[in-house]
Amino acid sequence: MNDAALIARLAAELGAALQAQLATLATAESCTGGGIGYAVTQVAGSSAWFERGFITYSNEAKEQLLDVPSALIARHGAVSEAVARAMALGALARSRAQIAVSVTGIAGPGGGSRVKPVGTVCFGFARTARDDAPHVTTLTRRFDGDRAAVRTQSIIAALQGLIDLLQIKGDATASGDCATHGTNVGTFAAPRRARRPHPYVAARSTPSRSRR
Amino acid sequence: MNDAALIARLAAELGAALQAQLATLATAESCTGGGIGYAVTQVAGSSAWFERGFITYSNEAKEQLLDVPSALIARHGAVSEAVARAMALGALARSRAQIAVSVTGIAGPGGGSRVKPVGTVCFGFARTARDDAPHVTTLTRRFDGDRAAVRTQSIIAALQGLIDLLQIKGDATASGDCATHGTNVGTFAAPRRARRPHPYVAARSTPSRSRR
Repeated sequence: MNDAALIARLAAELGAALQAQLATLATAESCTGGGIGYAVTQVAGSSAWFERGFITYSNEAKEQLLDVPSALIARHGAVSEAVARAMALGALARSRAQIAVSVTGIAGPGGGSRVKPVGTVCFGFARTARDDAPHVTTLTRRFDGDRAAVRTQSIIAALQGLIDLLQIKGDATASGDCATHGTNVGTFAAPRRARRPHPYVAARSTPSRSRR
Repeated sequence: MNDAALIARLAAELGAALQAQLATLATAESCTGGGIGYAVTQVAGSSAWFERGFITYSNEAKEQLLDVPSALIARHGAVSEAVARAMALGALARSRAQIAVSVTGIAGPGGGSRVKPVGTVCFGFARTARDDAPHVTTLTRRFDGDRAAVRTQSIIAALQGLIDLLQIKGDATASGDCATHGTNVGTFAAPRRARRPHPYVAARSTPSRSRR
């Protein structure tokens, strides 16, 4: 199966899973630049389960659209699990969706460093909880290949991670494992879970579920 | 040249034109679902000229993220030049970009009507003006083909329209012709220009260039 066919299959599978749970999705994308949104909306009828997306390519966009604190970006870098977490929570807070995914990474060819080489991509997967703060998992992956390959693999990993998230059916105490499947994985950081919203987000004066 | 290669060429050409004018781009997408953002960010270094994007798939997202009045959607429908205009203006107002494109259409297979059949897509192209309200052109196109074909043609038309807009170099009194090129055009509505901001947007209490 080629990448386009795999993405189409995952998008359809994700849509079915969201509809089965009466849930809707919001996306917060940096390095994929809208590719996740484009992937899921290829599915006919996706308006039933895809609510909105934020393409926060600049740091200022991350701050203004998703409430990612500039101090968080300054401290951890835009490509970090801390920022991915804040992006995913911001996407939940700034939408009506119950499920959100965020992606921030270094697609290349420039922008890499020794610590964060080209291909480093951080993900956040968030879902609302009935009587609790949203639950979030984050992970970092390192993809091989050129800019196009990194972005394609990021889209696949995001879709697969969302499907995995939805398979943890309503059990907030499950492992929360959002590990993604696929090839070309260099390093892999195990996902972490937060029982509380990100402190930087929680510290904001506006309620996390407020609307404009 | 296949569609993917054409989109890549147009994205690179658009990036060069934006950089030549020291301008940045914001996108406001509905039926393309992030495809324009994904297309332009395939260009290495696009962070220099692509600022952010809004995937406003639901009507509520159009209202909340882009200040599109619900009354405007109720009156003209989400797929209308009036809404496309408001979306483009909203993208300028909610970003730091000087250039914005909006797309709202019926990609199908459902959602069509006699007046607005599947394939009907409305575009807005906006740019800031130094001492005046932003300038906007809108147009409606009707594309043939299935959902994927309509979306692909919409992305191509958006990129070409942006390139055309940037070729009107600083002459705000030029024809403002954002007619797009390509094939598979059923009907074509001539672009219109507004010397004033859209009344629904202008009537809002917040200045059109305000930031959150």
